Amino acid sequence: MTTASAYPGEPRVPSSVFDAGAEHEQVVFCSDPASGLRAIIAIFSTALGPALGGTRFHPYPDESAALADALALSRAMAYKAACAGLDLGGGKAVIIGDPTKDSSEALLRAYGRFVASLHGRYITACDVGTYVEDMDIVAREARWVVGRSPAHGGSGDSGVLTAYGVFEGMRASAARVWGSPTLAGRTVAVSGVGKVGARLVGHLIEDGASVLATDVNPAALARLRTLHPQVEIVDDPDELVGAAADVYSPCALGGALTEDTVGRLRAKVVCGGANNQLAHAGVDKLLAEAGILYAPDFVVNAGGLIQVADEIEGYREDRAKASAARIFRTTRSVFELAEAEGQTPGAAAVTLAERRMTGIGRLRRILLP
Amino acid sequence: MTTASAYPGEPRVPSSVFDAGAEHEQVVFCSDPASGLRAIIAIFSTALGPALGGTRFHPYPDESAALADALALSRAMAYKAACAGLDLGGGKAVIIGDPTKDSSEALLRAYGRFVASLHGRYITACDVGTYVEDMDIVAREARWVVGRSPAHGGSGDSGVLTAYGVFEGMRASAARVWGSPTLAGRTVAVSGVGKVGARLVGHLIEDGASVLATDVNPAALARLRTLHPQVEIVDDPDELVGAAADVYSPCALGGALTEDTVGRLRAKVVCGGANNQLAHAGVDKLLAEAGILYAPDFVVNAGGLIQVADEIEGYREDRAKASAARIFRTTRSVFELAEAEGQTPGAAAVTLAERRMTGIGRLRRILLP
Repeated sequence: MTTASAYPGEPRVPSSVFDAGAEHEQVVFCSDPASGLRAIIAIFSTALGPALGGTRFHPYPDESAALADALALSRAMAYKAACAGLDLGGGKAVIIGDPTKDSSEALLRAYGRFVASLHGRYITACDVGTYVEDMDIVAREARWVVGRSPAHGGSGDSGVLTAYGVFEGMRASAARVWGSPTLAGRTVAVSGVGKVGARLVGHLIEDGASVLATDVNPAALARLRTLHPQVEIVDDPDELVGAAADVYSPCALGGALTEDTVGRLRAKVVCGGANNQLAHAGVDKLLAEAGILYAPDFVVNAGGLIQVADEIEGYREDRAKASAARIFRTTRSVFELAEAEGQTPGAAAVTLAERRMTGIGRLRRILLP
Repeated sequence: MTTASAYPGEPRVPSSVFDAGAEHEQVVFCSDPASGLRAIIAIFSTALGPALGGTRFHPYPDESAALADALALSRAMAYKAACAGLDLGGGKAVIIGDPTKDSSEALLRAYGRFVASLHGRYITACDVGTYVEDMDIVAREARWVVGRSPAHGGSGDSGVLTAYGVFEGMRASAARVWGSPTLAGRTVAVSGVGKVGARLVGHLIEDGASVLATDVNPAALARLRTLHPQVEIVDDPDELVGAAADVYSPCALGGALTEDTVGRLRAKVVCGGANNQLAHAGVDKLLAEAGILYAPDFVVNAGGLIQVADEIEGYREDRAKASAARIFRTTRSVFELAEAEGQTPGAAAVTLAERRMTGIGRLRRILLP
């Protein structure tokens, strides 16, 4: 996703770093004029462990937009890691610039030295605009890098387990709404068939679902048509919102769920791989009021994080996949907590994350000399 | 000094952290809501070693003022350490708040954990609003703390060697203007007789100078009167500027040297212990045009830094004093460089610092595996 804020409708020009990041532990501005590096590393929390989160390389219109993105994304990473049961905090970094023009070995390695300056409090990975090859370069300066190339012990494309995790979350949603953990016989509308959406389509078809799909990128649609000719392509992404489907799955940009889209949805479940799907926090409530079950984005799309986090121990595909499969249970727990406490699923997921951060984080009070 | 900017006339509201600190390596915003900590650690350069600089605890009107102060002070620390021949970079930290009301063990230790988060890239010490007892608390969380109490290996009040170094710088200035490295028979106007100014007066009297002194604090004047009854007290600090004196010595707030004060000075030398004496960079040139020799503040007041830096090895008073005595030669070198290159002394001191940062910093190219 490329929007500059978790909730695009919210103000994007903080007058104060502290006010904007009032709940964040640490925000680090890193500069290397010779290479052109301007990076912001935001650490939301380290209560559960080192703050892991990718590095987004993006031509932000200004520093405030970059800061707002880093703050929102690092918070989401903290919730994602906490719900996924990982021993990781939440962080995220942004590099201001156009990766196609401004990236260089010197810039990436200068960035790597600043990652190293935090001595393990922050672990970086790929995000929009950075690639496994970049992480291999960053890792020449810092030990705290995952999302590396397979040749360097990396787990490869993190879309693999992201899609798998979303599918597991969707099965849990189906169990909740229709009583059975399967999408067999259901129609799923997948908006965005890039590296996550396309793989999700594969899981859905294998499970016996019918799939409607759209993408703003014709090449992605063409690839999907070759791979899964049975998928019904909808040319206009906007049209897919109101299509007759049981599940709507946002797998592209953030902010897909607005008051407008909620009003037009005919699906009973929203479950997708995109980050920051809610245009603003209130949309969660609108979905609940419309009788639509929302599987919180950071709960169901944690597979990618689970995958790259597994590299810390030395990547094992079987172990990572087993861990991603647990997204089924986590999603179910979120729905149960939401019901028990009269919360929306989104709020329940935040509650679950915060309880784990508090409950496990406080264990450090027990000294282990 | 308590002004919020190196040059009080310059803009104090940066719209961008990166633009405001365009030459700084790293700016770290640290927050701990439970204790109320809001701290900014600014690292200008680590080319010569860990960035050492004190922690200022001050009720800044807003975050921009705090940031501007941290940026200006960390730059000055880099120049100070470089000219003093220390293996240290330049950093400075500010804590936003009123130390008399907002300080607590939890706040200082939270701050200590953030000092530790940089793992030695930043070494802290006392500054306005923090005391050796505070540094002992910060040190319970971080190894990288100097300016500690003597009971914990600290060097005690850093005003001792600051005053001594200013005196050595003043002797070098006297040698330059009057041909002999002594203040004997000269009249020195000391503005501010706190912990640095009062000790400087002692050195001056011992050397045979006549002293005029002022302070906005009546208690400081009363103490001075008891210690050195021969000093002539001038009640109005503003009046001291135009007094008949050979040397004017700003030892109080920053920004003492403005266009107005330069126009009224009758002294031939300006040499004092205050930080950031020039209200703006151009005042340096006005002093030169008026035929007044300006001994750059960060060159002559480096004694305090030299003193606390000595704690890194385990404080030895004799070694620290010998190092502070070298301020005589450094000040002379600055005057010589200024003459050789047609620069003002302030500009020459920056040149000296930058040349050392480049010349010694580049040696890291030679790998020592």
